[in-house]
Amino acid sequence: MSKIIIEARVNEIATRKGNPHVPFLPREVIADAKACYDEGAAIVHFHGRTEDGAPNHDPAYYLEANAGIRAQSDILIHPTLGYVANDTDAKGRFAAIEEMMKSADTAPDFAPMDTGSVNVDWWNPEAGAYDTTELIYKNSTGTLMYFADRIRHYGLTPYLVSWNVSFTRQIEQFLKMGVLSQPAYICFCMTDEIIFAGHPGTAKGLDAHTGFLPEGFETVWTVVNYKGDLFELTEKIIREGGHISIGLGDYAYADGARNLTNAEVIAKVVAQARSLGREPATVAETRKILNMQDRKIAA
Amino acid sequence: MSKIIIEARVNEIATRKGNPHVPFLPREVIADAKACYDEGAAIVHFHGRTEDGAPNHDPAYYLEANAGIRAQSDILIHPTLGYVANDTDAKGRFAAIEEMMKSADTAPDFAPMDTGSVNVDWWNPEAGAYDTTELIYKNSTGTLMYFADRIRHYGLTPYLVSWNVSFTRQIEQFLKMGVLSQPAYICFCMTDEIIFAGHPGTAKGLDAHTGFLPEGFETVWTVVNYKGDLFELTEKIIREGGHISIGLGDYAYADGARNLTNAEVIAKVVAQARSLGREPATVAETRKILNMQDRKIAA
Repeated sequence: MSKIIIEARVNEIATRKGNPHVPFLPREVIADAKACYDEGAAIVHFHGRTEDGAPNHDPAYYLEANAGIRAQSDILIHPTLGYVANDTDAKGRFAAIEEMMKSADTAPDFAPMDTGSVNVDWWNPEAGAYDTTELIYKNSTGTLMYFADRIRHYGLTPYLVSWNVSFTRQIEQFLKMGVLSQPAYICFCMTDEIIFAGHPGTAKGLDAHTGFLPEGFETVWTVVNYKGDLFELTEKIIREGGHISIGLGDYAYADGARNLTNAEVIAKVVAQARSLGREPATVAETRKILNMQDRKIAA
Repeated sequence: MSKIIIEARVNEIATRKGNPHVPFLPREVIADAKACYDEGAAIVHFHGRTEDGAPNHDPAYYLEANAGIRAQSDILIHPTLGYVANDTDAKGRFAAIEEMMKSADTAPDFAPMDTGSVNVDWWNPEAGAYDTTELIYKNSTGTLMYFADRIRHYGLTPYLVSWNVSFTRQIEQFLKMGVLSQPAYICFCMTDEIIFAGHPGTAKGLDAHTGFLPEGFETVWTVVNYKGDLFELTEKIIREGGHISIGLGDYAYADGARNLTNAEVIAKVVAQARSLGREPATVAETRKILNMQDRKIAA
């Protein structure tokens, strides 16, 4: 069996109500990145947060966090463009990455492209109603082509997120156009409990993603469950040759009453993968699987 | 086997290059509605067009067409809100229906709700590139709740269009909230050839729609292939208890070199359904299947 790429998704916009181990500040993210790396993660993904946990789009946050992560290991860095919370134009959404690309110490390895548009309102299970009603995550074709162009310019690897079949079909068109190179690295997004924008985090939900992988193109796929327990699917993903993106940013993982740390979540995935015959991919192996290029630092 | 609801989708924004029988003007739509009704269609759906075929959002078009259709048969009328071409606010998008509701002669029976947002750019197969790059079909949760409220106010039946699993999950949440009544009438949208926004028009594409019908709720489903040949799936749909929405608005249906009329397309579907043991539902039977209410004409 092939090596498995494990990505640690350490915080997203998760609160500490569900699990107090969610890192907020750069030093906390840096510590978690190293601890997850030591357990077998090859990629780290995080969102800028303030001390109170609010979203923090200040490029300074990412410069500090990236540099700190780089100083401790060669784990691959996958930043955010700010999701629906950063609803500006294409250039504005990519601005933080442009800043990061000014030094090899702060440059990331991936840049994300969510390849379509989708309603992402928050559901309140207690109220049985939506908490928000106007959250459309808009990624126009033109915006995506702009991102792809800047990603190629910098020698970064596009991290393609598919929320549903429409997103996956747009990836296929971009492959036909040469807007994306092969292999396409696709993250299939499942969502549960408080957001219903992706496929359900079930075997059927996953099959309805993987069944539409672009034919005739090289692809590599990973899976996330945003707000659901991905461990319900990890065995299936491992057996089917997929990769895994997981962490406290997505779900308040616990072992009984004990809250897990991000590193413990990664250790649990790695143990399961090994028991099924797949070793975690090192950073070098991940770079090879994804045919990653040398980054071009801005002059 | 249960009766099958056949809907004639007579023109959408299709040109006459592929098939010269596409109706544009009200008198042409009125004639096609009657001809399709005579062949077994219970619902007619059309878009306002000018003599040259351009989109025509003038409410006067719909008032004239609806009144003409009503004068000839009791076929159920399913209007458009103008799709992505009418990118105003919720009230603006519903304005034409408010006008239609002022008289029983012009009031429709359905109003559409596309229950989510999706990129709907046009693909150019010859160029191998997108012809448009900024077409996001935006239907926010708040806008959809506004539509549902007005639809309920007028005793109309919501015609729910799902482009992918995210749309179907939003329908499920609306059923939980009571924003939608049962049965939910859901049109699963497949797309092909020049638009990749829906599921592919294949058995797998259809299964990835029907597999996510809200559980625990009464639903009735129909299928459209926008820009693909739905006849590749009609036998499967008929056997699985689905309903069919089809016409020259979606695809330039032909019999060999001979272009079919809308009525001939409907006759072909009806013949196939009968050969598989399903009679077309009359208007009265359709009203019963969908539990349609009496319309409330605006005072």
